[in-house]
Amino acid sequence: MSEVRGQLMAAEIAEQPSAWQRLLDNGTEPITAAAARITEYKPRFVQFVARGTSDHAALYAKYIVEISHQLPAGLVSPSTTTVYGARPDLRDVLYIAVSQSGGSPDLVQSVEVARAQGALTLAVTNNVSSPLSKAAELHIDVAAGAEKSVAATKSYTAELLALYLLFDRVAGGDGSAARALPDLGARVLEGDAHVRDVAQRYRFAQRLITTGRGYSYPTAREAALKLMETSYLSAQAFSGADLLHGPLATVDPQVPVLAVVPAGAGGAAMGPVLERLSERNADVFGVGAASVIEGLAGGIALPDGVDDSLSPLLEIIPLQQLALHLAIARGGDPDTPRGLRKVTETL
Amino acid sequence: MSEVRGQLMAAEIAEQPSAWQRLLDNGTEPITAAAARITEYKPRFVQFVARGTSDHAALYAKYIVEISHQLPAGLVSPSTTTVYGARPDLRDVLYIAVSQSGGSPDLVQSVEVARAQGALTLAVTNNVSSPLSKAAELHIDVAAGAEKSVAATKSYTAELLALYLLFDRVAGGDGSAARALPDLGARVLEGDAHVRDVAQRYRFAQRLITTGRGYSYPTAREAALKLMETSYLSAQAFSGADLLHGPLATVDPQVPVLAVVPAGAGGAAMGPVLERLSERNADVFGVGAASVIEGLAGGIALPDGVDDSLSPLLEIIPLQQLALHLAIARGGDPDTPRGLRKVTETL
Repeated sequence: MSEVRGQLMAAEIAEQPSAWQRLLDNGTEPITAAAARITEYKPRFVQFVARGTSDHAALYAKYIVEISHQLPAGLVSPSTTTVYGARPDLRDVLYIAVSQSGGSPDLVQSVEVARAQGALTLAVTNNVSSPLSKAAELHIDVAAGAEKSVAATKSYTAELLALYLLFDRVAGGDGSAARALPDLGARVLEGDAHVRDVAQRYRFAQRLITTGRGYSYPTAREAALKLMETSYLSAQAFSGADLLHGPLATVDPQVPVLAVVPAGAGGAAMGPVLERLSERNADVFGVGAASVIEGLAGGIALPDGVDDSLSPLLEIIPLQQLALHLAIARGGDPDTPRGLRKVTETL
Repeated sequence: MSEVRGQLMAAEIAEQPSAWQRLLDNGTEPITAAAARITEYKPRFVQFVARGTSDHAALYAKYIVEISHQLPAGLVSPSTTTVYGARPDLRDVLYIAVSQSGGSPDLVQSVEVARAQGALTLAVTNNVSSPLSKAAELHIDVAAGAEKSVAATKSYTAELLALYLLFDRVAGGDGSAARALPDLGARVLEGDAHVRDVAQRYRFAQRLITTGRGYSYPTAREAALKLMETSYLSAQAFSGADLLHGPLATVDPQVPVLAVVPAGAGGAAMGPVLERLSERNADVFGVGAASVIEGLAGGIALPDGVDDSLSPLLEIIPLQQLALHLAIARGGDPDTPRGLRKVTETL
């Protein structure tokens, strides 16, 4: 255990705005280079391969590609290559691997196969000298700095930002919309004491549901993973639409719901979901637009000022804080969750 | 409530082998026609759109496409089209919507947009005259017969079979490997009384984990959904690899695990996952190869005789039976789960 439980995770959560500032100020050269190569390559399809937290960053980027770049995109199941030996035709495919450590053998093998099969390969990692960054033709360093807590936090939002900046650049943008993020992130961090109080409400919860739509669905997924990793409860994430297709039956007033409800279209699309949850007398706590949160059992309002597509960087912060404080309240150490290793090696 | 709780679901589970036989005997004409059109179209990329149970059938077909057809494939987030107005370039894309009812407006709109954007569109439904089957250029009827239980069972395996036969046909096959399924399915059904006993073990469980890899990962997902819908517990599905990337921390001897471990490569790839679960003293119940199940806390052995790629039709049967019997044991009626409607309309 760390000397103070959760001190690594707490420090890394707090570092996020400065990590983003670093990437915005000094990290854009490889992003610009990758964008130029992608523009030249003219991909027809984009595939992402990732695991765990980085898989949620990949899911976020999939929404960006589908919505802003009007290209079909998919998340690869690495096992098709590593377990079943698939050798797909990947000409015209942009193949992006996302990984904090860049060390998982299944991702390295997937990228090697994709490259041999004709894809333009890009690794987005927090480790320049990792096997994954070497396997891919292009590499972007998310520059989050060494991440020591097993529960990834700053590497997640740095991955989101790097992927946002990459596709913004491919679309001819200059990333200026993202420049507001460090200040806004610092303001969100100030809610820490409030989140610590909120965590007490979930002290004895054994199960919990997170939900969001569109760009904010990855936030719901990542929040659930953080809560599982640090607090060991069954936290299940559903897109708002999927929640209504079955899992809604599991919701009753004893199963807390965390809903991500940003100010834009993704938040508005949660309206019918919140209605159905209300019919079931669910306990819904919101993170997002102040106007939506007013109608719920409780919530954390996020500052205005960024588009739906950048909101995920801010939304996840109070949910990371919640995972941290809940773990501590339950007697655990979120820096060293039971049963986990920082670099997970799967084939 | 039905006169006898769960009688619709029980009947529909039992009908599966005859539904498969019907599709094999009389349902192949539209499958052959669709396969011919796909062969002529020469897709470079395959996208699937679906919700709930049908999303698991789509996930299964994604593995078939990636592994056997060596084409990149993806699962579409309908919200990109319906919430954010994306209009992607879908030339050379085969776009497949899977839905029992064919009635969900978001799927219909997604298919209409995909068709306008240049994709070859195919609807796989259990309702020939549904809006979805009319929106798509091609339609395959899975011919499961009217499904009355809210918890889908026979329509799921009929979707699996229709998708298997379609891609087998595209690859030049005659579907002969699938002809063994109805007899094997009938044998699996005979385990019902044993499964009813097994269900008692989970009578008071509030949370549960399901896991599998490759073709069997959709089985794990579908089993979790059935348990959520009928028994209201928090059932979480993870691919074996993803389980090790975080959620393993939630596993202790009080959190039951259901592992799908078929005889082929997907089951073999579960070996390291079962080892890590064993280190955590997890209670693992297996469904699959007799040789693997021997080493676990308990299990249901499936008959040999089909390839990994067809095993999902058999694997899900005892898990459907488990959801049925557990719901009844817990005092519920799996035919009418609280809070759910048979046709879910989301936008």
